[in-house]
Amino acid sequence: MDKEFVVVPRINLHRCLGDLLKNMDGADVTFHVGGEKISAHTSVLAARSSVFKAELFGAMKENLGDPIGIDDMEADVFKSLLYFIYTDSVPVLDMTSNEGEAHGDVAMASHLLVAADRYNIKRLNLICEEKLCNHIDTNMVATSLALSEQHGCKGLKEACFEFLASPSKLKAMKASDGYEKKSCPSVLKELITRLLPDEFETLKDIIMEI
Amino acid sequence: MDKEFVVVPRINLHRCLGDLLKNMDGADVTFHVGGEKISAHTSVLAARSSVFKAELFGAMKENLGDPIGIDDMEADVFKSLLYFIYTDSVPVLDMTSNEGEAHGDVAMASHLLVAADRYNIKRLNLICEEKLCNHIDTNMVATSLALSEQHGCKGLKEACFEFLASPSKLKAMKASDGYEKKSCPSVLKELITRLLPDEFETLKDIIMEI
Repeated sequence: MDKEFVVVPRINLHRCLGDLLKNMDGADVTFHVGGEKISAHTSVLAARSSVFKAELFGAMKENLGDPIGIDDMEADVFKSLLYFIYTDSVPVLDMTSNEGEAHGDVAMASHLLVAADRYNIKRLNLICEEKLCNHIDTNMVATSLALSEQHGCKGLKEACFEFLASPSKLKAMKASDGYEKKSCPSVLKELITRLLPDEFETLKDIIMEI
Repeated sequence: MDKEFVVVPRINLHRCLGDLLKNMDGADVTFHVGGEKISAHTSVLAARSSVFKAELFGAMKENLGDPIGIDDMEADVFKSLLYFIYTDSVPVLDMTSNEGEAHGDVAMASHLLVAADRYNIKRLNLICEEKLCNHIDTNMVATSLALSEQHGCKGLKEACFEFLASPSKLKAMKASDGYEKKSCPSVLKELITRLLPDEFETLKDIIMEI
């Protein structure tokens, strides 16, 4: 029949689960993160993260009534992680209005990448990695490079290497605040061997062995 | 940066929840349907159906350990309902290989429409309604018309009325097996008043008052 008698609305699973997260109906686990108590549903966490699954249905199964402490993570980051788990989207990374906010985004992308790696949520990991690839600048590149090495982000490492192929940007990175704090010797060595032309092969070998 | 360093995979929330349904990790409620025991997760059911939410977090909250009996529904229909709740899709309605199977599909669409209405799952309701609109034939039209009246499906009712505007199809419906069993007086009256031309206005009024 050509005439449309019925209009089927778009998929809304993500919206239903987003409402569930907001309303917290039937939440059966509470986390303690950065001084805040944050509730959630074990079944949704387990469905989306093999790490949560192992923790919540394994070691912590008997004590689900007690709040679970999450160290080394800010409450906002954990909340964004939960939002992604429930809805498959990360609105906190969508703001691109001005430079200040973009900088905040990049910081959030870094934190979320670490959180996604910790809970083995591959798609969020890649979304953060993509975000960082698209916002490489001289201030952030040292941090991104270190992150890429610590969390096995090949694409981000490649993007940083490409960015640093320009001598002026390489120099600016070395002078940036983030450099000393974030530098990660193994990836810097790899960078050096990439940037040095082939005629310095022996030199490269020496550098890699330092 | 133009070069693509990272490929972000497609949304996979529905796949994660589909796996949760399959593996039943952390299921916290069991239903008794058509002789089968079927387990599920209250948080997912509540997120997707206001009726399940009211039942599971309201009246039945204290007795969630006991199986919940579902009457007047076949196990296969309930399973398809659950699959939609978890994944936002209905593969059981996608088969269109041959006529026999298409007929089975239409029967399933009718059952699922009733189930979706019972649990107030609007999108599934409309998917079933659309399916029925696209598979109206002389054998099924009486059933579809009755369903449309009982479950408030305006689009389906319109589609049936349009189909029955042909005198030969109207006659075939009246002769079909489903007619007497499924006929629904109020909708048949409405059909009659639609099909009768304007000059029979008084006659229409009389029919409506019978």
